[in-house]
Order: sequence, then C-alpha cells, then structure tokens
Amino acid sequence: MLTPGRLREAIQQRMLEALPRPEAAPRPELAEYARLLRDYPERGGKMLRGSLLCYTGLAYGAPLERLLPVAAALELFQNWALIHDDIEDASDERRGKPALHKLYGMPLALNAGDALHARMWSLLVEAEAPRGVLLEFARLVERTAEGQHLEMTWVERQRLDLTEADYLEMCGQKAAYYTAVAPLRLGALAALAEPPAAFEEAGMKLGLGFQIVDDVLNLAGEREKYGKEIAGDLWEGKRTLILLRFLRQAVPEERSRAEALLRLPRERKPAAEVDWLHRRILESGAVEHARRVAEGMLGEGLEALRPVLAELPEPQAAAGVLELLERLVRREA
Amino acid sequence: MLTPGRLREAIQQRMLEALPRPEAAPRPELAEYARLLRDYPERGGKMLRGSLLCYTGLAYGAPLERLLPVAAALELFQNWALIHDDIEDASDERRGKPALHKLYGMPLALNAGDALHARMWSLLVEAEAPRGVLLEFARLVERTAEGQHLEMTWVERQRLDLTEADYLEMCGQKAAYYTAVAPLRLGALAALAEPPAAFEEAGMKLGLGFQIVDDVLNLAGEREKYGKEIAGDLWEGKRTLILLRFLRQAVPEERSRAEALLRLPRERKPAAEVDWLHRRILESGAVEHARRVAEGMLGEGLEALRPVLAELPEPQAAAGVLELLERLVRREA
Repeated sequence: MLTPGRLREAIQQRMLEALPRPEAAPRPELAEYARLLRDYPERGGKMLRGSLLCYTGLAYGAPLERLLPVAAALELFQNWALIHDDIEDASDERRGKPALHKLYGMPLALNAGDALHARMWSLLVEAEAPRGVLLEFARLVERTAEGQHLEMTWVERQRLDLTEADYLEMCGQKAAYYTAVAPLRLGALAALAEPPAAFEEAGMKLGLGFQIVDDVLNLAGEREKYGKEIAGDLWEGKRTLILLRFLRQAVPEERSRAEALLRLPRERKPAAEVDWLHRRILESGAVEHARRVAEGMLGEGLEALRPVLAELPEPQAAAGVLELLERLVRREA
Repeated sequence: MLTPGRLREAIQQRMLEALPRPEAAPRPELAEYARLLRDYPERGGKMLRGSLLCYTGLAYGAPLERLLPVAAALELFQNWALIHDDIEDASDERRGKPALHKLYGMPLALNAGDALHARMWSLLVEAEAPRGVLLEFARLVERTAEGQHLEMTWVERQRLDLTEADYLEMCGQKAAYYTAVAPLRLGALAALAEPPAAFEEAGMKLGLGFQIVDDVLNLAGEREKYGKEIAGDLWEGKRTLILLRFLRQAVPEERSRAEALLRLPRERKPAAEVDWLHRRILESGAVEHARRVAEGMLGEGLEALRPVLAELPEPQAAAGVLELLERLVRREA
C-alpha cells in the first residue's frame, strides 16, 4: 500500500494534471488564467480529505486508479471553496501566502474559483465516476454552502444569541460534512459499495472535532505552522465554539466590551481591542474547553468507525484510515 | 408542439422545482438562503437558451421530459453566472431590479451563486442526463470562464490595443458558446445524437450576433425594455465592438479623451464624461456598424443552420428553432 506521503503526492499530481498549463495557452492572458487556476492547488496542502477517501476506497478493495480522480476532484473542491471563502471573509492569507484575490483582485479570483468548480465536475465525468459519486459531490457542495450561509449571516446580522448547539449545527454543514463524512462515503461509493450509516454519524463527529481543532489553532496555534493569520477568526467575527463559551462565561463588563468589538466590521476593529479579546480568551479556559470537546468528538468518532472498518476486505488500508484520523487529534497545522 | 410561451413557463417551472423552498427550511436563516437562490430564477427572463435547446432536441425526436431538466440546468447556469458576473462587474441592476449583491451583500450572493452552480449539476445527475450532456456542461462553463477572464483582464490592465478580432474571440468564449453553440449541441446530445459540426460554426455566429445586439441595446436601447442601466458597459469600461470601432475612427483628441476616461475605475469616472462618450459614440455611426455586423452574423448563422435542421426527423420543431433564432435579430431587450 502507498505511504501517506506517496499518496498525497499522487493525489496532488492527479489534481494538477486536470488543470490547464500556462505554456499551452493560446494567448498571454490565458496563460495568466492557467496560473490563477493552479495557484492554490500548487501551494500543496495536506490532501487530508483525498487521502481519507483513497484509504477508505482501498479498504473496500477498489483499485487506486479508480479512486485517484475522485480524490483529486475532492481536493479541487477544497481549492475553489477556499478561493471563494477567502473573498467572502476578506482573508489576507492562505497557506502562508497572500490570498488569491490579494494577488489578482477579486473579480479574476472569483472567476478562477468558478472555473475550478467546473474542472472538478469535468474530472469526475471524464473519469466516468459512478452516479452515486456525482450525487455525493452535489450534496457536499450544497451542505457546505448552507453552512457557509449560516456562518456568514450570523456575522452580518451581528447575531450573538447563539448556543453551542447552533455552532455544532453550522459547523456540521460548513466543514464536518465535506471534511470527513463525504470522504468516507465517497471512498465507498467509488468502490461501488453502499456507504454504511456509521460513516455519516462517525464522520460528523470526526469532522466537527477537526474543525474545532482548527478554531483552536486559529487562536492558539503557531503562526508558521498554521499558515494563516493568528486570531483571523476574531478579526472576521466568526462565531466559534471558543468565542461562544468565552461570552457565556465572561463577567458582564467583559461580555459587553467583547460584543461591542464583534459588532464592528473588520476594518473598523481597533487592533488593541482584538489583542485584548484574544488575550482574555486565551486566559479564560475557553480554548481548553474547545480542545476537550474536540478530543471527545474525535475519540467517539474513531470508536464508532472502528467496528465498521474491521469488516472491510482490506485490513491494511482500513488501518490507514484510522492512522490518518488519529493524526488529526494531534495536529498543529 | 408547445408554443414558445408555454415552453418558457415549463422550463422556468422545472428550474424552480430544483431549488429549495423557504417554507421547507429548518431555520429562518436557511429560509433566507432559499430566497437568495430563488431570487434571480424567479425574476423570469426569456429562457431563450433553454428554449433553443428544447426545440433542437424535439427536432431530433427526443421527448420533452428528457429535455426539460437539461434546459432548466442551462437556465440555472445563466442565473449563477449572472450573480457572479454582477459581483465581478460591480453591476447595480439585473432584470430591472437591484443586483443580488446589492440586496444581500457580496459574500451571501457569491455563496448563493456557488449553491446554484451545484444545483445545476445535481439537476443533471438526478435526471440521469447522458455523459455527453455532462461533458458539454463542463465545457460551456469553462469556455465562459475563459472569456470572462479575457474581458476582465482587458479592463483591469487598461488594454486599449485591441482589435475587432480580439473582441470576437473573447465574445465567442464568454457569450456565444453558451448562448447558441451549447444549446444546439445539448439539444442533440440530450437526444443521444452526435451534434453536427455546423452547430458549432453556425452557433458561434448566432451567439456573436446575439451578444453584439446586446452591446447595442446597452448603449442605444430603451431602459425599460432592457432592464439594466443604459451605458453600463461604458461605466464598466467593457471593450465592446462598438467602443473599439469608435476609438479606431475617432479624431486624436477625442480618442485621447475617451481613453483617459476608460482608464479610470468606475467610481472615479465623471458622469459628464461618460455622458459625453455615450453621446459621441451614438453620433459616430459605431452603433450602426455593430448592428450591421450583428445582422450579417445572424444571417450567416441561420443560413448555415437551415440545411442541417431540414434533415432532422421533426420538421415542426426544427421550424421552432429557426423562428426562435429569427426573433433574436429583431429583439429590443
């Protein structure tokens, strides 16, 4: 079986093969177009979702050649969604470099995201992916868009009356589904198997755990490993589990001060106030709370998954699924 | 056979059936999400591309039930592309109402466009559209994105060294392909027939003619019929056939004055200067030139199409294709 490093390379290579090459462009403007499309995909990334998909499909006994285009398409999804996300959130950085719209302006970046979205589909159709795989891609894009809508309206409408359950619902749609549920299900579907219900339940917990770890790293991670601006979620006013916990437990004066800051748009937030909120959150124990919730979910997700994986025909690949997921618990980036 | 009016209604109904309903949403925020997705589709529109697709498929003998979902998906393409276009171009209006990002802000509108893009694909996959249809959709989205990239870089890089041939190349990608080539080809493909080469050649001329008429209406149309701001293309600095013709024939002082204006971003263009350029273009004969070019192309396209259509098994539907295309020549909106 492929090592995780080799698998990551194989997925990235398959993804890049599906994109236009600047040297083949008929006009200089279209060479630039090709560079825009390749920019985020060439920045690398962990290929975590694609790898999870491949190990799952291999565990079902599918050949890697049938899984690679589906995994590459899933990574293309991640790339176009990040381009559009960065525009929507006015993010400055991605994977340690300027966001695409910072390099080329919003209109060209938005359009490049649409082109990558279409490439995702053509990669799947050209590889003759089964109908179940195509339907799952439609589902994962729509779930992600719904979650993204929830998160963005909460910020725009200055909603602060949210519970941890609201956060978990939003995050389930926006991140957990495409991060863990969809890769597990797609691995089965690409192997022409019916995905078990446990993939959805366990995947949801694993995906939530993964996203909460991401929220933790955003506030308490190391800048160089994380690759995005630290405390970017506070600048953007994201309603994370950490923030909601902090607000619920803060004394009234601190809660009012934090809420006043969160009501300001990014460009009007005073840096000193963001630093204050960042420091107070780190001191409050809200980060540790989130870390515990994440570890609990990752643990429960793994427990629920183990018996299902144990029944699959290829135990070595099934072990690869678990190893990959276990690394999530300990990740720093 | 269905009248054009009934066909338009049937396509729109099929399109709206594929979209989420606000009253079925599990949370108020998601009811709003459904309203965003339905906003442009409910504004109506001519369903021109979907109708062309249906008449073509009917001419091949395909049943309408097999064509309607493909036509509805093509109209969904139009809708999500317009949402993103309006963001990219900072347009104020669409079909006589404020653009979606003016109503809900850019981030939510961008995300709604992505969701509609995904719905387009799920509609096709759920209807079990043949593989050729799916590949053609990927192709039409990618062609449109390339053309959009060309047009936007010309404005951003302040390119004024462009010829009519450059315009026709850009416009072929950005508009003509999805407006005429793709509907003709999709009609055949949905009927499980191989589209003849004439569809690509004739469709390109018809689509170019259609887009040039659109450029003409943008400068010389009636505001109420047109549904967008008149002279919006000048505000946006679009490099249209009309503008390029005007610049090439203008006396040096007028050319310099126009170029200085075109180098300014939209928000820094003085209204009086835009009015001046608008008036000078209308006086210069460049609009009539474009009208003649468009009529020539529409005529040539129809001529090339006629013998191919005459060989199809259903002459009444084939006549419907021609009637629809002939109305394009005389349209005012």
